[in-house]
Amino acid sequence: MAETLAEKLEKSNLGHWMARFEGFMVFVGVVGPFATLPQLVKLYFTHSQHATGQSLLSWSLYAALSMLWFIYGMIVGKLPIYVGNGISMILNLLMVIGILIHAGVTF
Amino acid sequence: MAETLAEKLEKSNLGHWMARFEGFMVFVGVVGPFATLPQLVKLYFTHSQHATGQSLLSWSLYAALSMLWFIYGMIVGKLPIYVGNGISMILNLLMVIGILIHAGVTF
Repeated sequence: MAETLAEKLEKSNLGHWMARFEGFMVFVGVVGPFATLPQLVKLYFTHSQHATGQSLLSWSLYAALSMLWFIYGMIVGKLPIYVGNGISMILNLLMVIGILIHAGVTF
Repeated sequence: MAETLAEKLEKSNLGHWMARFEGFMVFVGVVGPFATLPQLVKLYFTHSQHATGQSLLSWSLYAALSMLWFIYGMIVGKLPIYVGNGISMILNLLMVIGILIHAGVTF
């Protein structure tokens, strides 16, 4: 099998940087889900009258997908997978609830 | 180190189901990003007048995060990571562009 770029990097004197990048991605996986917070602020507090522009279908799928990744992460025992997706799951469910409250059933 | 649930499952007669679940999650990783399509339809076609309810900050962060995962997936040579996140990156960028067109600069 062909070597991946990561394997080549690890053998070179860039291996040091690859390890840092891996660590950074663990950070990204855990902190990234909080990117949904501004969207939640708009939905619940500042722009509730525009809630009907939010797709209930998209956010329900995001909630279901993050739940699957959360379960998968727990089973394979990978903290960066289940912590980040656990946070996503909660925030996505809050989006679903907010859309139902402020716009009702929509697509 | 403690065995993960996945390792215990693989040794048991449930190992068969674990392999199926892994395959299913590869499918989820690639098809999941298309969950954004209904949101794009609302933003561009049916509910453009509610574009200001979309968070430019959240969608810009999603675009940046999916780009990071795309690059990471390419470097470590994992197709389920870079294909899914490559699709996400494109759809998230389309959300950013749509918000800028229909709502202008917002938070």
